[in-house]
Amino acid sequence: MRIEYSNKVIKTLRIKIIDKPGYLGNITSIIGANSTMIGDIKTVHLGKGYKIRDIDIYADENNVLDNILSSIKDFEGADVIEVVDVVEKMHVNGKIAVKPTVDINSIDDLKIIYTPGVASICKKIHDNKALADKYTSIRNNVAIVTNGTAILGLGDIGAVAGMPVMEGKALLFSLLAGINGFPILLETHKPEEIIETVKHIAPTFGAIKLEDIKAPECFEIEDKLDAMLDIPVLHDDQHGTAVVVLAALLNIAKYTFVNLKESSVGIIGLGAAGTGIMKLLKSYGIKEFNGVDLDKSALERFESLGGSPKDLRGVVEQSKIVIATTGCPDLITPDMIQPGHVILALSNPNPEIDPDLAMKHGAIFAADGKSVNNALAFPGLFKGALQAHAFTINNQMKIAAAKTIASFALEGDLVPNILDKKVHEAVAKDVEAAAYRTGVAKIYED
Amino acid sequence: MRIEYSNKVIKTLRIKIIDKPGYLGNITSIIGANSTMIGDIKTVHLGKGYKIRDIDIYADENNVLDNILSSIKDFEGADVIEVVDVVEKMHVNGKIAVKPTVDINSIDDLKIIYTPGVASICKKIHDNKALADKYTSIRNNVAIVTNGTAILGLGDIGAVAGMPVMEGKALLFSLLAGINGFPILLETHKPEEIIETVKHIAPTFGAIKLEDIKAPECFEIEDKLDAMLDIPVLHDDQHGTAVVVLAALLNIAKYTFVNLKESSVGIIGLGAAGTGIMKLLKSYGIKEFNGVDLDKSALERFESLGGSPKDLRGVVEQSKIVIATTGCPDLITPDMIQPGHVILALSNPNPEIDPDLAMKHGAIFAADGKSVNNALAFPGLFKGALQAHAFTINNQMKIAAAKTIASFALEGDLVPNILDKKVHEAVAKDVEAAAYRTGVAKIYED
Repeated sequence: MRIEYSNKVIKTLRIKIIDKPGYLGNITSIIGANSTMIGDIKTVHLGKGYKIRDIDIYADENNVLDNILSSIKDFEGADVIEVVDVVEKMHVNGKIAVKPTVDINSIDDLKIIYTPGVASICKKIHDNKALADKYTSIRNNVAIVTNGTAILGLGDIGAVAGMPVMEGKALLFSLLAGINGFPILLETHKPEEIIETVKHIAPTFGAIKLEDIKAPECFEIEDKLDAMLDIPVLHDDQHGTAVVVLAALLNIAKYTFVNLKESSVGIIGLGAAGTGIMKLLKSYGIKEFNGVDLDKSALERFESLGGSPKDLRGVVEQSKIVIATTGCPDLITPDMIQPGHVILALSNPNPEIDPDLAMKHGAIFAADGKSVNNALAFPGLFKGALQAHAFTINNQMKIAAAKTIASFALEGDLVPNILDKKVHEAVAKDVEAAAYRTGVAKIYED
Repeated sequence: MRIEYSNKVIKTLRIKIIDKPGYLGNITSIIGANSTMIGDIKTVHLGKGYKIRDIDIYADENNVLDNILSSIKDFEGADVIEVVDVVEKMHVNGKIAVKPTVDINSIDDLKIIYTPGVASICKKIHDNKALADKYTSIRNNVAIVTNGTAILGLGDIGAVAGMPVMEGKALLFSLLAGINGFPILLETHKPEEIIETVKHIAPTFGAIKLEDIKAPECFEIEDKLDAMLDIPVLHDDQHGTAVVVLAALLNIAKYTFVNLKESSVGIIGLGAAGTGIMKLLKSYGIKEFNGVDLDKSALERFESLGGSPKDLRGVVEQSKIVIATTGCPDLITPDMIQPGHVILALSNPNPEIDPDLAMKHGAIFAADGKSVNNALAFPGLFKGALQAHAFTINNQMKIAAAKTIASFALEGDLVPNILDKKVHEAVAKDVEAAAYRTGVAKIYED
């Protein structure tokens, strides 16, 4: 069953329930009877003969929530004490902080980390700039740069309104790879202003992650900055997504015995994600690409990269593997599906075709974008690049990341659990090795 | 006794000492006999009949350290196990990290803080930009911007070599005021590039702290940015120092019964610190300023602010209060000192005149710069401005900070303990009130 989370009303119901067998089952049944999914259930208080539990629910609309609340009210043996807007609560005051990594317990500590002790460290770096890697956080700092023009599926809502997403990325960087992510919000639409600004602040960072910047500006900004700077510059919407798609395809190929490199690939939607996917799959060895987009310049870009523009039906019918990143629900109709098709309908929350429907019409594999989350890729991808002191993140590093991600998926799954730190560690290690192997890592003499 | 820390070799001696009365005394005496100061002493291991202690020492030079080590070797009952370069150790990998402030324990948590839950928060901010204060860290983020042209007393060593200082400031922001300090390193000497860059990244922050940018560029950069942006922009070298100097003068006036507002003030060195001090003292109500600097443009700036340029001897002899920030040791000779002088010779590590010497020649009060640390001012100053949503930090806010800092000093001291968080909290509160009182705080309708 597919769940459209982003349209959901996410709430926590704090409920006092009689502590006898069956009562919790009744409550969860009431919620289920309202077509509402349940998330975590936590016991927050153990009373005499009752428990207080927090039940996270994902309701379709507020009136569904109202129905659930009135049904519970009618039920003997449980009371809703509070309905918490858990999303709002988790975001209050933001989600990240800059914290010391050393303890300061006395004035003597202060003399060591601050003046006067710090002067000797500054002098060392001034004498040998490479020591900045040793004595500062720079090598572990990544700027998360956005101008807010393509925030999630919300479009151009501005950089400040995109800050909760940037903080989310910073949080995942820290949680999954121990990287310091610094959101940088730029309220400008001009590529040259973004390029100039990032160029100037670059000495602070070991890498630059461009985020939620719309096409086609994202291509120019990334290309110019990555060429200009001696640290990696990577637009996550293109390459993070592409890495996870390749990982998913590697597993699909394994499960279906499809020969990936010999398959034709159709790409529906040639924006940042579609273009990034095409570039990476081409680099991986796939030779035939069909593509469609409403935007003429996107089609021209696709053609210049070696793809064949077609109409929508032509793309689906003439491709073994179809990857859609359009944001348009139900764009692919069942009559387009042919036996043996592999369908990745990635738009969130509503895919271009329901995977079950595609399977019913002959697809040998169909999935939506729920599990294709670029947070599976970017922490390890950046960590590996930072560890290698790479000056860019090239296709070989991305392919290494995709292979490692694929290898950690449980049998039958496309990709592994995003919160599994072992995955991100392994990705980092393999990306680091790929950087050395392909000569984009700095070599230090001993 | 004055200690010149920044020339010192700071080490930790890990020593195994017989655990009987007198043995530690013997060791500390050996250290003292080598004219070497002792910092913290910590017991790190309790053995059978012995203790292992870490003794922090501040030695003048490496050969003094050698003497101490050989004397301890000759002493029966103690062995130096290890000599740790504690400064180096504390700075390895930098001193700050970006950390989550919310716990992520499950995929459900991820759905709330990241996609899809985050989308609803982005939409709220897009609909009402003021909600960015509620749902992001922006209001609590301060950029610590440097181009590395005036790092400590080291001069123009570049922004990257200045990073350990910027991280130190970020650490103190977090430790003393719970503020997120983001170092931003700009390798440029052009004011307009600094102004443009800061203007573009400003939406990320609640305030901008300019740091260790040399005069005269620092004045133009601060003035233009503060006028341009709707958040405070403050050059700490000017105003942080000025606030702590005013705090010290308030206590000196109390102890010596000098009437501050009616006293003439001589300022030796009219760079960033000297100029900032002059501006703040003038705003406080002091009317007569004499000043000297080797740089002609600095003298002109001083005159345009209402000061009277004089030669060095003229400045000292015709001013009741003399404040020196030149970086030149022993610039003020004892024959210039007159009965009743108040002398603040602030250059670190070597003041313009030894305070004891000044006192001997008739000064009623003399101090060096050891305790005049701008870290006493900036955490509370910025916190107060952020709490008030101030769009600038004006003189009344700085004077409020100075008064509060002064009020927390123990009787006889110039300023309070820098690590006392109560001081910074009180400064923030009083600065916030001053912002409201003077109409530079944003007023939100309910």
